[in-house]
Amino acid sequence: MLKQVILIRKDLELSKGKLAAQACHASLKTYRKSKKKNPKETNDWIDQGGKKIILWVKKKKKIEREIPKKIPKTSIKDAGYTELEPGTLTALGIGPWEEEELDKYTGDLETVK
Amino acid sequence: MLKQVILIRKDLELSKGKLAAQACHASLKTYRKSKKKNPKETNDWIDQGGKKIILWVKKKKKIEREIPKKIPKTSIKDAGYTELEPGTLTALGIGPWEEEELDKYTGDLETVK
Repeated sequence: MLKQVILIRKDLELSKGKLAAQACHASLKTYRKSKKKNPKETNDWIDQGGKKIILWVKKKKKIEREIPKKIPKTSIKDAGYTELEPGTLTALGIGPWEEEELDKYTGDLETVK
Repeated sequence: MLKQVILIRKDLELSKGKLAAQACHASLKTYRKSKKKNPKETNDWIDQGGKKIILWVKKKKKIEREIPKKIPKTSIKDAGYTELEPGTLTALGIGPWEEEELDKYTGDLETVK
């Protein structure tokens, strides 16, 4: 099973809507990168229902994970129009990638409830 | 300015993470439809920063809006693995489309904070 994971900084205390918008930016940006790099796997993921999991990271340092280069990832910086300072790193999108391998790098993280 | 709007059902009282995941599904699905239908506008939207706004609709009936056919939209039904009954309509993605015209159809809705 393929999935995409989205890491969100918990320390920023984003509102519900802001968090959702940052997650959408990360999901779409990483999809577009993945689609170029791994078109077949990306289409397979869509066909499987496009599973997406939202996870907390405690602070900025924790979002900068050691993830193998073969796995597509993109980071999101906020434009700073509303709640945050311009250029604040808010989210990281990873995948789609095989769930089992992805869990090696993000399995320690808490799900956003 | 082009933007995408994502309508979320307030009556379902989704958790923060569930709401973000449904918004991501709606954003990506509507992007993919729009990319096929209006490739130029969709790329322009990405180049402009891919503005996304998350809005509440009070209940299911309110999510079924009269929106002109030319504007791409897709609805999201939940698979029902976690918080919801399978097949529950959770979200509607609309656009990207010109902000001014889009606001005619969704300008009455409250932003998700």
